[in-house]
Amino acid sequence: MAVVVMKFGGTSVANVERIKNVARHVKREVDAGNKVAVVVSAMSGATNQLVAWVNEASPLADKREYDAVVASGEQVTAGLTAIVLQDMGIKARSWQGWQVPIETSEAHGSARISGIAGEALMASLNAGEVAVITGFQGVEPKANRIATLGRGGSDTSAVAIAVAIKADVCDIYTDVDGVYTTDPRIVPKARRLPKVSYEEMLEMASSGSKVLQTRSVELAMVNQVKTRVLSSFVKPEDMAPVRAGNLENIGTIVCGEDEIVENQVVSGIAYARDEAKITMLKLQDKPGIAARIFGPLADASINVDMIVQNVAADGHHTDMTFTVQAAELPRALAVLKAAMVDIGEFELQSSADVAKVSVIGIGMRSHAGVAAHMFKALADKGINILAISTSEIKISVLIDAAYAELAVRTLHSIYGLDAA
Amino acid sequence: MAVVVMKFGGTSVANVERIKNVARHVKREVDAGNKVAVVVSAMSGATNQLVAWVNEASPLADKREYDAVVASGEQVTAGLTAIVLQDMGIKARSWQGWQVPIETSEAHGSARISGIAGEALMASLNAGEVAVITGFQGVEPKANRIATLGRGGSDTSAVAIAVAIKADVCDIYTDVDGVYTTDPRIVPKARRLPKVSYEEMLEMASSGSKVLQTRSVELAMVNQVKTRVLSSFVKPEDMAPVRAGNLENIGTIVCGEDEIVENQVVSGIAYARDEAKITMLKLQDKPGIAARIFGPLADASINVDMIVQNVAADGHHTDMTFTVQAAELPRALAVLKAAMVDIGEFELQSSADVAKVSVIGIGMRSHAGVAAHMFKALADKGINILAISTSEIKISVLIDAAYAELAVRTLHSIYGLDAA
Repeated sequence: MAVVVMKFGGTSVANVERIKNVARHVKREVDAGNKVAVVVSAMSGATNQLVAWVNEASPLADKREYDAVVASGEQVTAGLTAIVLQDMGIKARSWQGWQVPIETSEAHGSARISGIAGEALMASLNAGEVAVITGFQGVEPKANRIATLGRGGSDTSAVAIAVAIKADVCDIYTDVDGVYTTDPRIVPKARRLPKVSYEEMLEMASSGSKVLQTRSVELAMVNQVKTRVLSSFVKPEDMAPVRAGNLENIGTIVCGEDEIVENQVVSGIAYARDEAKITMLKLQDKPGIAARIFGPLADASINVDMIVQNVAADGHHTDMTFTVQAAELPRALAVLKAAMVDIGEFELQSSADVAKVSVIGIGMRSHAGVAAHMFKALADKGINILAISTSEIKISVLIDAAYAELAVRTLHSIYGLDAA
Repeated sequence: MAVVVMKFGGTSVANVERIKNVARHVKREVDAGNKVAVVVSAMSGATNQLVAWVNEASPLADKREYDAVVASGEQVTAGLTAIVLQDMGIKARSWQGWQVPIETSEAHGSARISGIAGEALMASLNAGEVAVITGFQGVEPKANRIATLGRGGSDTSAVAIAVAIKADVCDIYTDVDGVYTTDPRIVPKARRLPKVSYEEMLEMASSGSKVLQTRSVELAMVNQVKTRVLSSFVKPEDMAPVRAGNLENIGTIVCGEDEIVENQVVSGIAYARDEAKITMLKLQDKPGIAARIFGPLADASINVDMIVQNVAADGHHTDMTFTVQAAELPRALAVLKAAMVDIGEFELQSSADVAKVSVIGIGMRSHAGVAAHMFKALADKGINILAISTSEIKISVLIDAAYAELAVRTLHSIYGLDAA
């Protein structure tokens, strides 16, 4: 007997027919004697419709009301999933965030889970009932109002619930059958990774891989929750049920690096097109200039990613280049213009026509020369590097968007990731 | 200053544009210094879509899950309405049933409101905030699960909230501008009633008028809540705001009969096409036969309306004719067939091709001959009466559906209801 969390994303519950398919996956686990908590997203498209209505109602909508509206999508799928399970003869009930309760911070629209009272859920599971829980949402306990976790938050819900009920595994069912060395739509020779470490998955998620939401991976890493990425479109009866202590090697298992026998130097290539580059030219080169630029951006909750500073030709000025999320570009430019009185004069250039390409691998830590290899390979293809940022297990470069696919294919090949 | 409940039905909140129109009605009341609680239905069509999904998931869905799914529609409109109000500079927040809380019975799918804790709502209103409350739903306190009140339940929500916050008036905004002497689509000469008594409105609602839900009228009558039926499609700025103690004479005011200066003998003609007739022929005429027939139907929660019993030609048998809701006909026939062992042999006939036409008026109590007048008028038109039922202020006849419109027009005319 194992305790299993099964999370199904929007495409897996897009209509009642697909929800019936989800229920067959759940039945497989129930039939094997497992205790099952199911976490569901809204039907794909439902959340977009709700968000569109909110934007039509007011572009500056109160985030608490935004949350009340958009959280309704998960409520629908949780109820429908419970109904389908019951129809198959399986005891089940739906739980909304406030019913569990899943308590959150006050940051409506992008709240963090502050605690999950797992007792009622555990009592339900112990009574032989499948608990079908709304992902993406919780309740802010002070005002007793619904709060959502932000886009992709259902992954985080699933991992947090796995922590609360001490699950053996948190299975994330999606429309791909695992985590790949890179996006197979760009590189047909991309390979599925049977295992990937939390650290690598974290870098992949924050470098543009959309398979798992970044915060869910953080939470899984901190709590050592074994997490699997699986496809819900595999025939439910063709998969083996979870057995405690013996996790079938399907999909991709996200786990501690000690569980991965041989670490690759590079295990994946990620890319992101949703960054924008801002260049500030002819800044006065005075102490504290960086704080005067990045302080106001931080105050406006705009995340800055890659930063490059150059001394300008005249020796008295400096140029600063950095990236922000493309969606934040107009706001970032407005913040910088407003800060000009404090920063001093400068010229402003910006472009959303850039891409960030990242090479990720836990083996980099003990392997020199990965960066040099990368820069040479890109240079050989005539790809100009606009900015660089690195971590212990990742090197990212900013390049012209036009070269993104070429860069990904080139790097995938030179690091030996291509399938035979 | 007045305390006002404003309820808007599905067609009034069918999209964001219409919700903005609703907000202008609310603004008119806020600008006049009134304290306003708004009760909203789901966008028209939304509930039907949710119910269709539930039926697709399972025709025998758990009513608690049904409620969790279908209650989401009101959650969306309450949030959107609060957002639009805020966008117009009006302080507002949404309340879901469980947040107020609006407590209900355990009869999921058709629950009754058992209590509303008005304190938090009143505190919100006293702080100058408009409270936008989800109609149709509440929370069953024992299991802490969402319960819905059944179709049309938002009217009942509105009246119950008016009771809880001691509102001066409960304004029901809909797509018609009041209660009419009959359906204007059938009788173009139908007239709007400026006032109608609770008793008459109750008979109209239960005789087929769809303007207000029956239970909402009961609740208004018991608690003497002054209720108005108004059109939300009148230009919001063309209506006068509510003033305590001086209710503008627009729409239709539903009130105590003492407030209606001169009662008409007949104030309205209602009709319903959703009844079905069941005839049981050649029943053995023995004591207790009626209990053996209607007991099992009551046990199955099937409401029986009109009942007629005749002694059959042979003197030893009896025939019984009665009506049930057309939607319940297949179930009613199944119940009767199963009860045959207890009832004895009989022949069964049924038809959904019938209509109930009712003449309603509080003046009937002090006026003889209304029924005779009605029967003669129908006979003159060659309309056969299949069954009759009466109350102190209502006479209903069951006729062939084909004659329904003719009957309504005829009765509307002979009782002097036609507009000049």
